[in-house]
Order: sequence, then structure tokens, then C-alpha cells
Amino acid sequence: MAEQFQLYDTTLRDGTQQEGMVLTVEDKLAVARRLDDLGVGFIEGGWPGAVPKDTEFFRRARTELDLGNAVLAAFGATRRPGVPASLDPQVRALLEAETPVVTLVAKSHTGHVRNALRTTLAENLAMISGTVRHLVHAGRRVFVDAEHYFDGYQLNREYALAVVRAAAEAGAETVVLCDTNGGSLPDEVRTVVTETLDLTGVPLGIHAHNDSGCAVANTMAAVDAGAVQAQGTAHGYGERCGNADLFTVIANLVLKRGREVIPLEKLRELARTGRAVTELTQVPGSAAAPYIGGSAFTHKAGLHASALRVDPDLYQHTTPEFVGNTMRTLVSDMGGRSSIELKARELGYAVEAGSDEVARAATRVKEMESDGYSFESADASFELLLREELDGGPRPRPFDVESWSVGVTGTGDEVRTEATVRLTVQGRSVTATGHGNGPVNAMDTALHTALDPCFPALSRLELTDYRVRVLSGETGSGAAARVLISYRDGERSWGTVGVDGNTTAASWQALLDAVHYVLLDGPPGRVEDAPPLAAAVPG
Amino acid sequence: MAEQFQLYDTTLRDGTQQEGMVLTVEDKLAVARRLDDLGVGFIEGGWPGAVPKDTEFFRRARTELDLGNAVLAAFGATRRPGVPASLDPQVRALLEAETPVVTLVAKSHTGHVRNALRTTLAENLAMISGTVRHLVHAGRRVFVDAEHYFDGYQLNREYALAVVRAAAEAGAETVVLCDTNGGSLPDEVRTVVTETLDLTGVPLGIHAHNDSGCAVANTMAAVDAGAVQAQGTAHGYGERCGNADLFTVIANLVLKRGREVIPLEKLRELARTGRAVTELTQVPGSAAAPYIGGSAFTHKAGLHASALRVDPDLYQHTTPEFVGNTMRTLVSDMGGRSSIELKARELGYAVEAGSDEVARAATRVKEMESDGYSFESADASFELLLREELDGGPRPRPFDVESWSVGVTGTGDEVRTEATVRLTVQGRSVTATGHGNGPVNAMDTALHTALDPCFPALSRLELTDYRVRVLSGETGSGAAARVLISYRDGERSWGTVGVDGNTTAASWQALLDAVHYVLLDGPPGRVEDAPPLAAAVPG
Repeated sequence: MAEQFQLYDTTLRDGTQQEGMVLTVEDKLAVARRLDDLGVGFIEGGWPGAVPKDTEFFRRARTELDLGNAVLAAFGATRRPGVPASLDPQVRALLEAETPVVTLVAKSHTGHVRNALRTTLAENLAMISGTVRHLVHAGRRVFVDAEHYFDGYQLNREYALAVVRAAAEAGAETVVLCDTNGGSLPDEVRTVVTETLDLTGVPLGIHAHNDSGCAVANTMAAVDAGAVQAQGTAHGYGERCGNADLFTVIANLVLKRGREVIPLEKLRELARTGRAVTELTQVPGSAAAPYIGGSAFTHKAGLHASALRVDPDLYQHTTPEFVGNTMRTLVSDMGGRSSIELKARELGYAVEAGSDEVARAATRVKEMESDGYSFESADASFELLLREELDGGPRPRPFDVESWSVGVTGTGDEVRTEATVRLTVQGRSVTATGHGNGPVNAMDTALHTALDPCFPALSRLELTDYRVRVLSGETGSGAAARVLISYRDGERSWGTVGVDGNTTAASWQALLDAVHYVLLDGPPGRVEDAPPLAAAVPG
Repeated sequence: MAEQFQLYDTTLRDGTQQEGMVLTVEDKLAVARRLDDLGVGFIEGGWPGAVPKDTEFFRRARTELDLGNAVLAAFGATRRPGVPASLDPQVRALLEAETPVVTLVAKSHTGHVRNALRTTLAENLAMISGTVRHLVHAGRRVFVDAEHYFDGYQLNREYALAVVRAAAEAGAETVVLCDTNGGSLPDEVRTVVTETLDLTGVPLGIHAHNDSGCAVANTMAAVDAGAVQAQGTAHGYGERCGNADLFTVIANLVLKRGREVIPLEKLRELARTGRAVTELTQVPGSAAAPYIGGSAFTHKAGLHASALRVDPDLYQHTTPEFVGNTMRTLVSDMGGRSSIELKARELGYAVEAGSDEVARAATRVKEMESDGYSFESADASFELLLREELDGGPRPRPFDVESWSVGVTGTGDEVRTEATVRLTVQGRSVTATGHGNGPVNAMDTALHTALDPCFPALSRLELTDYRVRVLSGETGSGAAARVLISYRDGERSWGTVGVDGNTTAASWQALLDAVHYVLLDGPPGRVEDAPPLAAAVPG
């Protein structure tokens, strides 16, 4: 087994130490299914015995988790000093998790043995040997995480090597060299992995943190030097600066090193997996994340936008579709007419950069941007603007707004939100009231109540997210605000934007744009092979 | 000059191609001042002639920018094919920017010369020589950015080298090898830089993008191989996956390589500079950013929290104060009592992990977290909870809430928001109304109107930010919400949290916590040398 490359995910253990991440057992089971689908070989579920939620995770996993590719690993520590492994309750909890793999963290840095474990160097080696043997004897595959290995190796090379040998001799399948504090740089990692491999011959893994900004590079350096296991987390989640981003590592290994650690057809699921995981963890990945970020293949500069029309490969290091991502262009004053043209084509409109329509749209975008609008995440609002220029005038109004209002009242523990909209629809005056959790939801409900009977297409419109950004010049809620709202209708998702001194009014604008967008008839000159709009909205 | 290491910042040019970043000329001048204060040697201000805002930046910089350390660089392209440099308006605009340095982008990849520039390989070399000579003759120091160098070097090594030689022979001081598409890995960068240096002897720089997650590592590899200029941007801002994060590069060079590219006392300003830049750009840096991120020295795991009490250096790769950052601990169910104790001490309370108070606080935190609360960014709400446990009962209420309400009404372009609060303050019933831009601001205003006369300390309380997070289980604005609100009072800044099915009610809770926090009397056992609270709030 050790001859096959081992992709080891620790999102559910080390990743949950990320600031702001709180996962339920349900969440953890769902994340595990996603990572298994992607083709990861090992999923570390947590520390049974030490964290009650993790004990529960492994208990439920036995019946609820049907993994196709991956095997589960339980994480824990070597036995306590002076206690046989068989009598250590923490070690017993590892066996009770009933996972095929147990990953033991072991000290390999003499300072940590003495000051954190408060035991002798010899006893630490005995703890490693004894615990590994006990687990192997019970039928487990055992990996050993050699904590603080790179710092320990600099301090006392012989002891660090003795830890690797002790683990392997006791039956550990792979010894994972951990840059626990994340301060190493790739050349040091390469040297230490090369030397350790030469001196011990033990199958090695790498577990890197990003405190010097080099977690991915350190992982690549270790694999280049012969490591057969790479540990990491989805989106690089983890304590402090995070762990190595396993998504980036996978894409680098497949696309830059030609090592098919997951099949090519699974690689195409990478971006989708990333989005699914953030929906579960509620901790967004970076839009700038390599390969799968919403911005990873997004072009803004006018210089590049012109060249992109000639040949996209000139300005991309790989093909976005290989990782399930899409090239996007941004509408911005930096891009000018070339960007407007590219964006319009992306939305399915056949226009030319030199046309009057594009020139007028570019001017309007520029003016609205100076008022605080941003169309980079609001494709639908941009398309409405573009359509007005293509159609040569303000868009026809399927309804008129007479007035709208929202009220929220709290008395004791009871809170009530009510919105009222007065519209003129097809000549008739319509008044509708909506309740909801908060003003945006109540306005959304009132709009649906008023309009859905006349416009059935609206009934599928679902508000999925909204973001408020305070604009510069003032601080706090007294400032002007830009509201971005995301919607979906079962097939597509898109965004709209509103700007106003009043946040609720800005939200109202964005809600109206969404409704108008759904009621827009199909684009007149939509290009046949245009990508689905959903792909153009950042995850 | 070339013998001194060149730190070159391109935040104002390449960094502004970051998705979502729109800087005014005023913003750009302010960012330049911050980077100059930090000790950066070169600040690239933009592309005069091509971007009107950048032309204006250089015009205003002549009178408004008084740089102490840095010199300004104008960025532009080599002359067009077939036109002498002296007659090319774009080259003229570079001279009219009147900067000491001009940085020219030049093609070094034969595919780009042919397909993007649409000229011959010989003419491209002539364009480089001619433009460099013209600028040097006009008294400029010239850097040449060799675009797509690493990809070009693989494709046609001799031509890439010819570009480097042509630039240097014409008088370029440094030739910057650019990994424009960001797909290279450190070992390739090291090899190409080493070979180019050996074969040409020209002083080289490095300009890396992060598309493989290796921008910082690639920059370090190039410098290790002999590059004398490192280009990067604040927070790694930039198109697609961003540029090399210059803040990380600086800290790595000083702390990992012992190269004092900025003085140690300036390095202590690194985190502060980072925060100042994000306030100007309105594009937040990552909390997980190496060295300066709000989470960079933040510990959550119970395992680590216990060891941290023994010796913080065991779990940190460097001393946070070297870069102006601070160690923080998070209150979370993963940390248990050790984390609560550490956090309490950070806030100035002398408590013991074994005490009943800490045990009760840990239980309450756990319960509230399962309801959706998160105290990681809400120090003030945590301190209120902790004080109740230390004081042995619910905190005294300086006032009681009878009811509250908010209404927003829109008619035509006019929008009106009004909040009303009915409170009992010191036995008297007080009703107050507040208007504002949006519900949170109106409620905040109404609270101030009702309470400030009785509690003057509240008048300095200022709401600076609020964030709404939809909690799992449902989608959209119909779901339960967690609201985090940030405040400052001139000296300190802090956060509070509210959770409710109704976003406005959650905001009201967080507003009330802020008021109660200000009205709390000083902590009974506050430790003298506790760090200021501001340091504990993520930037």
C-alpha cells in the first residue's frame, strides 16, 4: 500500500482549528462524503476521546458513512509517560473509534519532549514504540505524525531520526514529517526529507503549515524529495495561517508533476468540491485561491483583456476547465471597452468593442462605479444595463413601484418584521405585505406575494446570500452602503447590486434588479455556446 | 545602487488588478505614504498615459508626495513596433510622469512576441534596446520586467537570454524575471534564475504570481539564487490569485534569512502598515496571512492552549512582536478551560483554569456556541459573560428595555428610516426616536438619544462595522443569523455578537451588549500589563 501515493486530508481535525470554524457532527459527515467523492485516500475525522464531538463522529460514521475511495483515520497521541498503551484511556478511545487507520502524533523535538511532555528522551521513544505496536497488534494501519520534525532535526538530528526509526520498526506504515509551527522554507524541507529518507529508508509523509507562506511549496518540495504522503486541508483551513491547501497540492501534483493522485475526471470536480465544502463549513475559501478560487482565472487589466481575445492560453498557466473552473472577465474602469465586450460575450451577447453600444455601456459603468457601484459580482445588474444600451433606451417596466416600507418591532422576546409594497402591475394597483426574518427577507416575501400571480417565473427565484459593504468616506452604519444580493432559480445563480445612503434602500434596489432580470426576455443575440451564467458567479 | 537589495512594491499598479479593488488617486497617494514609511525602496505608481487615474497620480505626486525612503517608478511598455521610442506617445507619457525610475514591460517569450505583439523577434529586441536607451538618455533609472520569462525560457532559452542581455546592454539597471502566469514552482525558478545569472551576469529581479500557491516561495527561491530585486504587493493583492505578498517576503527575508531589507524597528510596523493599507483599499487581507494576519498567532486547540501556558515559543515560528502582531487565544469548545483561562488573562482577569468560575464560563460558552453564537470575534460579549460568572450572577441592568421598533419607508426616491426605543432608565420611562441610514444605524441613534444624557460614557461609542452571517440549515435571508458588530470609543475597539432568527433582532442584541460593555465598571482583577484590547480584535 505504501507504494501508492497517499493523499491525506485533515480538514475535520486540523482544519477545524481554523478561527471561526465550528462544525457539527452532521457537517463533518457531509464534508467527509465530499472529500471521498473527490478521491482523497485518507480522511482524518478527529480525535476520539479527547473531543466529544469527534467520538460521536466516529460512532455515527460506522453506520452513516459509506466511503468509496477513502478510509477513515482517527487521530490521537502516543500513550502517556509511565503507562502501558493498553491501559491508557486515550489509546483505548482510538481503538474504540474502529477506523482502519490510526494516526499518532509523536514528539520528535527534544525541547518538546522535555518541556511539553515533561519526560525523558528514552521514555518518549518507548511511548512511540509501545503505542504503535499496541495499535498494529490490534489490526490497525498506523501513521505517525512526527511533530515539530524540521525544527527538531535542526536541534538534534540524531534524536529526530531515532523517532522515525522507532516508529517504523514498531510497525508504522508511514512517518509524516510535520512542520508544526509552519516556519520552514522549501529548500530546508527538501534537504531534511532527502536526508531522512537516505538515512532511514522509511516511507515518509509531509504535513506543512503556512506561517511563512510556503505550505504548498513545502509540500511539493517534500514530494519531489520522495515523500509518499501529503497531508493538507480543504482550502488550507487550519490554525494560525492554516495548513497546506490540499486542493492546490492535488492540482499541482496532477498538472505540474503529471502524478495522477486523483483521476483527471475527478480533478474536474475540484472547484465544485471546494464550493460544497465552504457551504458546509460556512468559512469561505479565498477568491484568490489557486485553481479553484472565483478569481483564479479572472482577468481585469485592459492590457490582458485585449490579448485574451486573441488567445486565452497566453495569460493562464493552465486550462480552467481541467479543475472545473471558468475564465471570467471583470467589468471595470481598468478594462475599458475590451472588458465590456468580453463580458458581454461571456453573457451571450455578440457585440464589438468598437460599437456605439459598447462605448455607451462603458461610459455608464464608469459613472456608476464612481458612485460606488461595482459590477464585478453583479452580472445581472450589468446585463440589465447592457440590454438598455443594446435595446436603445430604458427597459420596459413590467410594473411600477408606488411605495415600499419595512417595520421591525421587538417586545420582550417577540420580534415581528413586516414589509409592505404598493405596486402598479398591468394597470392594476397591488398592495402586498410580507413577513420574514429581517427586512430583506420581508421585502422579498412581499414582492413575491405581489408579483408571483402575474409572473409565475418569479416563484422559482430564491435569495441565497446578501452582503453589505460600507463605502469609504464615513465609518459605521451611517455611511453609504453597497448591497450585493445573490439569487438562484434552480438552474442558474446570479448577483445584483444596489447603492444607497440607506442600506435598506440599497437592498430594495438590488431586489428589484433581480426581479427585473428574471422578467427580462431572452437576450436577442445570445451566442449559442455561451457558458451557463452560474459559472460566472463567484462561488 | 544595484548592490543594495531592491524591495519593489507594485500594489498601486499590479495590485489594483485585484478583483474588487477600486482606488482613487487620493487612496493611491495614501498607500504610497504607508509603504514609504515601512521602508520599501521602490513604489510603482501606475501606468501613466494608459490609465488616466495613473497620469493624475504622478501629476499630484510631484507636489503632494514627500517620500522619505522610496523612489517612485512609472510602469509602461516598450515602444510600439516600427516607431522610434522618441515618437511613441506612450513612452513620452512615461517621461512626463517625471519619476526617477521607469519600469518597462518587455516580451521575453517568443510566442507572445509573435501572437500578442505581432512582430518579429528581432524587432522586439530593437524595441527593448531603443526604449531603454531613450529613457536612460533622458536621465531615468530603468528596470525591465521580462514578461512570461520562465515559460519563455523553457520554450526558447536563447531568446529569453537575448532579451535580458539586450535590456542590460542598453542600460537597464535590473532585469526582473516575471512569472506572469504564476504557474512556476520554486525549483524551476531557482534553476532558471541561477542559469540566467551565470550566463548573463546581469542583476536580476523576481516578479511572481500565486497561481500555483508558490508566489512567496518562488520569490525566496529567486533571492536565494542571487536575485537582487523582489517585487510584490501589499497583502499579495493582484489579478487572479494575486502577486507575491511583499509583507510576507519582507518578514521571511529579515527573520528567516537575516537580510535586513528593512530595519528591525520598521519590521515592528508591518502589521500596522497592513491594517492601514486595508483601510485604504477596502479590500481586507486574509486573517490567515503569514506574520500580520489577525489569526497568524492565534491559538485555538486545547492541546496547544495548555502547552502555550508553559512556553509560547513552543508553538510559534517567530515572536509576534517582531512584526507588530500579538498572540491571541480563542474561546471555543475545542479549547475548553485552558482557552477560557488564557482569554480571560488576555482581557486582564487573573483566573485559574481549575476554578469554578472558569468551569461555569466554559459550560455557558459551549451551550451558546451550539445555539450559533461565536465569541472568537466578540471579546466584549465574552467579557460580559465572564464577568457574570466572576461576579456570581446576572449583571446589574443599568436600564431595562420595554420595546423597540424600526421602520423603513420608500416613496419614489425618498427613503426614511426611524427607530423607536422604550426603556426604563433609573426608574424613569424613556422613549427615544432615531433616524439613520438603515435599521442598525437608526437603532444605534435611538439608543444614544435615550441613554447618553444619563450615561455620558456612551457618547464616545462609535459603531464601525457590522457583519451578518446566515447560519446553516436554511438558505437566504429566511435563516437564523449571527450579527457581529464592531465598535470603538477613541481608544479601544471591540466586538459583540447577537444571534436570532431575525437579523434585526440579532443586531439589537449586539447593540445592547456594546452599551452594557461600555457601562461595565473596570474589571476587578485586571492585570497591569494586559495588552490593549484593540490588539485582540482582528484587523
